[in-house]
Amino acid sequence: MKNPFVLINIFTVTPDDQRRLIDLLTKATGETIKHMDGFITSTLHRSIDGTKVTMYAQWESREKYEAMRRNATASPYLEEALSFAKFEMGAYEVVEIFKKA
Amino acid sequence: MKNPFVLINIFTVTPDDQRRLIDLLTKATGETIKHMDGFITSTLHRSIDGTKVTMYAQWESREKYEAMRRNATASPYLEEALSFAKFEMGAYEVVEIFKKA
Repeated sequence: MKNPFVLINIFTVTPDDQRRLIDLLTKATGETIKHMDGFITSTLHRSIDGTKVTMYAQWESREKYEAMRRNATASPYLEEALSFAKFEMGAYEVVEIFKKA
Repeated sequence: MKNPFVLINIFTVTPDDQRRLIDLLTKATGETIKHMDGFITSTLHRSIDGTKVTMYAQWESREKYEAMRRNATASPYLEEALSFAKFEMGAYEVVEIFKKA
């Protein structure tokens, strides 16, 4: 497979809201996003200090990711998330993968 | 294996310096970090807009990661990197992994 398009999306929250945000992103991904054309895999993370939730996602191409963003299905969960969380998107390509030597 | 300790470390640079930073992080990881006790895997990313370089790394435990940070071997590369790049560390645990349905 060609080099995937990688999204590293960081949500900043108050620690009291971290669990609520995790539940919303779990629903958005599990119910809709993971069924979409071009989605490969994603991993949801909670920061140990309680202030961040970060989604690391791989897509087949930037075009397919953007088509998903235009799709309305996932929006209610994301809209609710953005009502109490700050969102910073990062779009990347992989340079190199290192394994334990 | 138990849940890994995940670091998502974001370096911010001017686009002119992105390649230089990638080279430094590649050397630091390939020559020293990947040999260290507790390292599992890491993936180096370049942002498409040229302004970020992000290392996504999995370690066996927070303790082993912190022992590496105290080790001097990797420091000259990291010190040089920090002379021209802004660094933001994120320490996480994995909540859930989603695969294409």
